[in-house]
Amino acid sequence: MQMALNEARAAATRGEVPVGAVLVRGSQVVARDGNRTRELSDPTAHAEMLVLRAGAAQLKAERLLTCDLYVTLEPCAMCAGAISFSRIRRLYYGAPDPKGGAVESGPRFFSQPTCHHSPEVYGGIAERQAAEVLRTFFQERR
Amino acid sequence: MQMALNEARAAATRGEVPVGAVLVRGSQVVARDGNRTRELSDPTAHAEMLVLRAGAAQLKAERLLTCDLYVTLEPCAMCAGAISFSRIRRLYYGAPDPKGGAVESGPRFFSQPTCHHSPEVYGGIAERQAAEVLRTFFQERR
Repeated sequence: MQMALNEARAAATRGEVPVGAVLVRGSQVVARDGNRTRELSDPTAHAEMLVLRAGAAQLKAERLLTCDLYVTLEPCAMCAGAISFSRIRRLYYGAPDPKGGAVESGPRFFSQPTCHHSPEVYGGIAERQAAEVLRTFFQERR
Repeated sequence: MQMALNEARAAATRGEVPVGAVLVRGSQVVARDGNRTRELSDPTAHAEMLVLRAGAAQLKAERLLTCDLYVTLEPCAMCAGAISFSRIRRLYYGAPDPKGGAVESGPRFFSQPTCHHSPEVYGGIAERQAAEVLRTFFQERR
């Protein structure tokens, strides 16, 4: 999660909403990235989406059955959907996102009958640090 | 929607789940594509995601405020999230998807308090044809 936090901080320096993600397979880092929606003019370029796509391309597989995902913020509906399609094994996330999250907030996607694969979910990992990176970013922009 | 149906049929011939999407801006087609999750080894490569990303890249903007999206199947949570982030104006879709949809099914994402932009939604457009393309595809694979 420290690596994901570093990706979040790097995103902040690029002027992006600071969220970072790391995809791992056992002790191997498969992909790591931060949010790049502005840089890429791509509304889908959340940190999670970027590492899932990079991981699938690298492993030449749609399904990342043996991979775990670390992300600094509770995933939104788009990312939760992508996590489910990717068949991620375990999801570790930092701060909850009551305004935009879809795991413990809003649609609680993994509990829906239309969700066909749910990872094991562990929230609140390094939550204070993850929330602090976001708070600092938005305070500086006010 | 006929153009989206043709994209769905083209996806079927590639061995992909036959869903097609077209992004339009007024009378101009901005992007059109079908599902390519297998071909690209990308679990996020749903037809909707591909045309939203292509449209955003082409218009060099994260937000597609003046664009409308046609898709042959009710979008899933991932695509509904992306449609919301893209600020799509109107969503027209074909067949409902009670098993995996997220508009009228499951999480009903656009009605969630965590959804910050909802398009105008019109379902059931050429529904019979859209459902038929899917039914034929899955029957042939049984």
